[in-house]
Amino acid sequence: MDSTRQIIQKALAAGQQTLSEYDSKQVLAEYGLPITREALAADLETAQKAASEIGYPVVLKACGADVVHKTETGLIEINISGPDELAAAYGRIASGAQKAGQKLLVQEMIKGGRELVLGMVRDAGFGPCVMLGLGGIFTEALADVSFRPVPLHSHDVAQMQAELKSAKLLGSFRGMPAVDQSALTKCLSALGSIALQHPEIQQIDINPMIVQGADPVAVDALIVLGEPADQTAQAARPKVGLDKFFTPNSVAVIGASSSQGKPGNDVIKNIMANGFEGKLYLVNPKGGEILGHKVYQSIADLPRDVDQAIIILPAKANPDAIRQCAAQGIQTFVLAAGGFAEVDEEGKALQAELVKVIQETGVRCIGPNTSGHTSTPANYTSSFFPLGRVPKGPISYIAQTGNFATHTMRYIKSAENFGVARVLGVGNKLDVEESEVLEYLADDPQTKAIFMYLESFKRPRRFIEVAAEVTRKKPVVLLKGGATKEGAGAAVAHTAALAADDRVVDGALRQAGVVRIHKYSHLFLAAKALASMPIPKSNRVSFAAPSGAMLVCLTDLCRKQLNLEVPQLSPQNTQRLQDISPPYIKMRNPVDIWPAAAVGGVEFAYGEAVELALRDPNIDAVISVLMLTDETGIPDYQFLVDLAGKHPGKPLYITFSGQKEHMDKAKSYLEPRGVPTFPLIEDAFEVLDIICRCGQAMNRP
Amino acid sequence: MDSTRQIIQKALAAGQQTLSEYDSKQVLAEYGLPITREALAADLETAQKAASEIGYPVVLKACGADVVHKTETGLIEINISGPDELAAAYGRIASGAQKAGQKLLVQEMIKGGRELVLGMVRDAGFGPCVMLGLGGIFTEALADVSFRPVPLHSHDVAQMQAELKSAKLLGSFRGMPAVDQSALTKCLSALGSIALQHPEIQQIDINPMIVQGADPVAVDALIVLGEPADQTAQAARPKVGLDKFFTPNSVAVIGASSSQGKPGNDVIKNIMANGFEGKLYLVNPKGGEILGHKVYQSIADLPRDVDQAIIILPAKANPDAIRQCAAQGIQTFVLAAGGFAEVDEEGKALQAELVKVIQETGVRCIGPNTSGHTSTPANYTSSFFPLGRVPKGPISYIAQTGNFATHTMRYIKSAENFGVARVLGVGNKLDVEESEVLEYLADDPQTKAIFMYLESFKRPRRFIEVAAEVTRKKPVVLLKGGATKEGAGAAVAHTAALAADDRVVDGALRQAGVVRIHKYSHLFLAAKALASMPIPKSNRVSFAAPSGAMLVCLTDLCRKQLNLEVPQLSPQNTQRLQDISPPYIKMRNPVDIWPAAAVGGVEFAYGEAVELALRDPNIDAVISVLMLTDETGIPDYQFLVDLAGKHPGKPLYITFSGQKEHMDKAKSYLEPRGVPTFPLIEDAFEVLDIICRCGQAMNRP
Repeated sequence: MDSTRQIIQKALAAGQQTLSEYDSKQVLAEYGLPITREALAADLETAQKAASEIGYPVVLKACGADVVHKTETGLIEINISGPDELAAAYGRIASGAQKAGQKLLVQEMIKGGRELVLGMVRDAGFGPCVMLGLGGIFTEALADVSFRPVPLHSHDVAQMQAELKSAKLLGSFRGMPAVDQSALTKCLSALGSIALQHPEIQQIDINPMIVQGADPVAVDALIVLGEPADQTAQAARPKVGLDKFFTPNSVAVIGASSSQGKPGNDVIKNIMANGFEGKLYLVNPKGGEILGHKVYQSIADLPRDVDQAIIILPAKANPDAIRQCAAQGIQTFVLAAGGFAEVDEEGKALQAELVKVIQETGVRCIGPNTSGHTSTPANYTSSFFPLGRVPKGPISYIAQTGNFATHTMRYIKSAENFGVARVLGVGNKLDVEESEVLEYLADDPQTKAIFMYLESFKRPRRFIEVAAEVTRKKPVVLLKGGATKEGAGAAVAHTAALAADDRVVDGALRQAGVVRIHKYSHLFLAAKALASMPIPKSNRVSFAAPSGAMLVCLTDLCRKQLNLEVPQLSPQNTQRLQDISPPYIKMRNPVDIWPAAAVGGVEFAYGEAVELALRDPNIDAVISVLMLTDETGIPDYQFLVDLAGKHPGKPLYITFSGQKEHMDKAKSYLEPRGVPTFPLIEDAFEVLDIICRCGQAMNRP
Repeated sequence: MDSTRQIIQKALAAGQQTLSEYDSKQVLAEYGLPITREALAADLETAQKAASEIGYPVVLKACGADVVHKTETGLIEINISGPDELAAAYGRIASGAQKAGQKLLVQEMIKGGRELVLGMVRDAGFGPCVMLGLGGIFTEALADVSFRPVPLHSHDVAQMQAELKSAKLLGSFRGMPAVDQSALTKCLSALGSIALQHPEIQQIDINPMIVQGADPVAVDALIVLGEPADQTAQAARPKVGLDKFFTPNSVAVIGASSSQGKPGNDVIKNIMANGFEGKLYLVNPKGGEILGHKVYQSIADLPRDVDQAIIILPAKANPDAIRQCAAQGIQTFVLAAGGFAEVDEEGKALQAELVKVIQETGVRCIGPNTSGHTSTPANYTSSFFPLGRVPKGPISYIAQTGNFATHTMRYIKSAENFGVARVLGVGNKLDVEESEVLEYLADDPQTKAIFMYLESFKRPRRFIEVAAEVTRKKPVVLLKGGATKEGAGAAVAHTAALAADDRVVDGALRQAGVVRIHKYSHLFLAAKALASMPIPKSNRVSFAAPSGAMLVCLTDLCRKQLNLEVPQLSPQNTQRLQDISPPYIKMRNPVDIWPAAAVGGVEFAYGEAVELALRDPNIDAVISVLMLTDETGIPDYQFLVDLAGKHPGKPLYITFSGQKEHMDKAKSYLEPRGVPTFPLIEDAFEVLDIICRCGQAMNRP
């Protein structure tokens, strides 16, 4: 039997772009994938001999290097029960197959109620990825498949199964046993090994993989060959780290300006407003003084101790400025200018020059086309958008949009009550890109949680390698737009066609434990929750609201649209709830707070309900829909702060029903004291769901 | 051949709870449903004769009145190709079948790649409902089914298909033609007819219904018999209408109070605050004067012209008060007291008494346990929760929760800038219930859109009949909690088991054109949008935002999570966008507004983008994510009001990026002038999606 390498070499020598079904399965078999017993047959006699060895019933089908739709062209007959039937089938198929340049394949007939589809495709960014899905009609009707980059992690296969809409079919079902987990894991791992060891193999389809009893068997298979992709592009080169970006002792602004409202002026104001304690050097040919700081007339005049330069010069002037700075020993740069590859052909040429300068000098750069970065532990920002003093806190952001570190930071500052540690706009990311920043933030003691807003990954494979580590230590939340439709065009195999629509990105992020969000608002609402509250142990929530109808709707929201459970409190806590409520209402979780509030007052009722839940062993997180109207009484909100302080192990989120002015006051009181609030009720629940997913990612096997 | 009636009678006489497969199919056939050709066979010879008449291949299976899992028990053999095979199969099955008290059925072998499941179930509220789904493994793995109450409307079947996750399978698929639409419609209608004509038939399963070519054929079927349900409970009795509730000329408060903060005092203040111009009579045994109004000492003292009485007395005192009022000629009542069936056994007895009084006197009541109702066109409210003057507007609410007409109205009043026409809390709905109010609002010229927040339907069938009419004239939006798990326990047939989890409610609401929402916040956010803006013709949106990344994420939101399209503007409008933007950015919809704003200013750039979209024939609705920071400049918001006024045919929604204080100011300026704003960006899109669904419902065939 030929080895995989021989099979591939022969096929390539013959100018084939695909392997025949027989050869494809030989490759699979070498890697331990269970395949049908089968044999090629040049004539009827060989076919009959093969069939009797395999055992009837058998399948007879055409087999060759060209992809042929066997069912549609009548080049397959199944369930052949004996030699005579085989002869008849042979008579019907043989001439057509030979006409199509195909051989005949006699194959074991596999019977099973469930068809899977497995596959492998090489993603341009994430590299080889394997696919698992429900096969046959399910694939085409539902595209019910899940992808993961290889090599697979221990929990990947279980997660991939759980993601399928028709996951139920893989369990014990209609008298059939559950699909053998270890066999399935072996199959997917084997596909990964094939991909890693044979770069000429571009795509693999196993369709169908029929589950016989509990055991999956590859019944048809297709391997697509092609030119190995260049893997060198993603190789990392040794580099100076990011420390000097985030904790510079001295900074130079190249292009400092004395004109109010100019970026070269605003950046100085920002640095001063944040109380930067290091040295600040300004450079402008005009010299003089700006905002109390001496201005150097040229880069060459700068002292030799500058850690970081912020270059606020037109695009054209950047390469030369970097060279001059590098000559002065400056190794890290923030390049503010736009006007590079994002703009036009001239910009592209300029960007190429910039890349060259970076390579030649070995310096590190953020940008160009960045809105800068901020590092509150160092009281520092390179932002030229007037941010003023950026509030300090434990949340760090990586953003690939000028909007974030500017308008959105302004929103956070003006509307929310939490602070940030590091914020970095990656801009055109010629050098510093998201995966390196993520790696830095992983070990940053000032960063408790990382939020990202990206349009693309510069080094996708590296990104998920880094993320897979970070997400075990800290929550990593990502908003990423842009379902890619690419790949579908060039797809020979089914797997490749299905690898569109963001499915590979989704699989890669899940594998890496990155929590993907889809709403911009959650970038700050979930951050607010993480800034002051712990991550719940699991997803069991208790909540109180002043309306039975609201409790029902919110329970539906928890269970149907989110992944939150609403279990009962312990018997003694349920009894206590009952004790504080009128007897006519049967108290349970979620808590109908109105009767207790009517009897004992808002503060008493909510206080009891929140504390019982915070103490309850069945509950991981607490949400209170606070009733705020003049008539029912406005409580002193301190009781919520006290309760949160007394039970620091569980998150408490507050939202409201009632008058807007009281909601605003409650927010102003509670948030600076560490209790997050949400003006619209559902937001509290959606955010909790995100935070629970973070916890699950951190605790994954 | 027996008719359906005869078959049912025989089965009932024999004590059967189900019909055999053969009998079930005979019933289906009488109603024109295509079934397999088949015959019962008492012995092998008859079976062989039947098979040769039907034509091989055939199926041989057990058939009897008891439901038997034929596949699991080996009582079925398929694809029998000739008399000898039949004899062999007969040998294997016959004794087992006879042991199980079953006959043998010889059946045409139907081949087709697609299995449907059809069914009928009687819902306790909505009456008979039919079901359509993908059969076989799909039903069990995905529960991919859709329900509709019968009789079916013209568009129901198409909609039911579209709702299926695997809808694609019903079109032309893998070389198979699309499933015959008219045949499918006939089948579902026939199931409806059977249900309407034979009340003893409780459940029907057709599983599978195999699609042969384009034609569905019932291959297995089960009819479940049972006691006909009592249909009289839902019959309507002739009644006085609701006019006197909403436009009373004179009102009496029974239980008026002089004590501040008491409901009997607050209700008077509310009536006065709303500028009620009719007569207001107060009753309290103490007499005297309250808030400038004379107090009558007894109901008997009241003049004979009172249109409506608000009874603010303890539960116990209600029956007698109604009797006394009725004696004075008062016909409509608002019953504020709680403490009835929602509370305890005593309350239940009291409620029974109340029902009796209502029946005896023939009066109309809202409540008890209602938070009252409001009718701003009549400057009137019966609310005893201090609401003050309720803002006038075109939105009407029906709520089944005390929370709504109190705290939520207070929220709307304090936080939003739109007004209401009628608001009614149905309370325990002993008399007036949601369907009658809905019918009233249908013809209410003051009501432009109707929002409902219900826990249950008092008369489900009537509700959807009424809703089906109203929704063609006005948007009807419903938040309803509570997925029912009932029914699954008593289910004999598959269809009945699937009729759980709110699926029937969902189908009924879709049929009736009611737009179901799942977030409490949308009760006022969508209302705000409908209060001042038109309903878009279709779902094509143009939006502008100051960040490329944001445009991508929001486009994903529109397409993947919502049902909004983001088409290109006309070529000349696209060109105009290009003209106002720097050449390096290729302008399209959605609109990256930042470059144009940087060049021409915020007001100019947004003004152009909004107007182009409002004028564009490819666009139905416009959303602007307004950039509001001091540095980029705060525009005079009037330009948006002007643009909205100039293009009244399309909705314009505003949301924000930037500083909170400017957002708040923009909201305060824009909303009273008819341009709705949304503080969180996604809300604008989610609301537009809801309003588009309203439009689709109004324009449905």
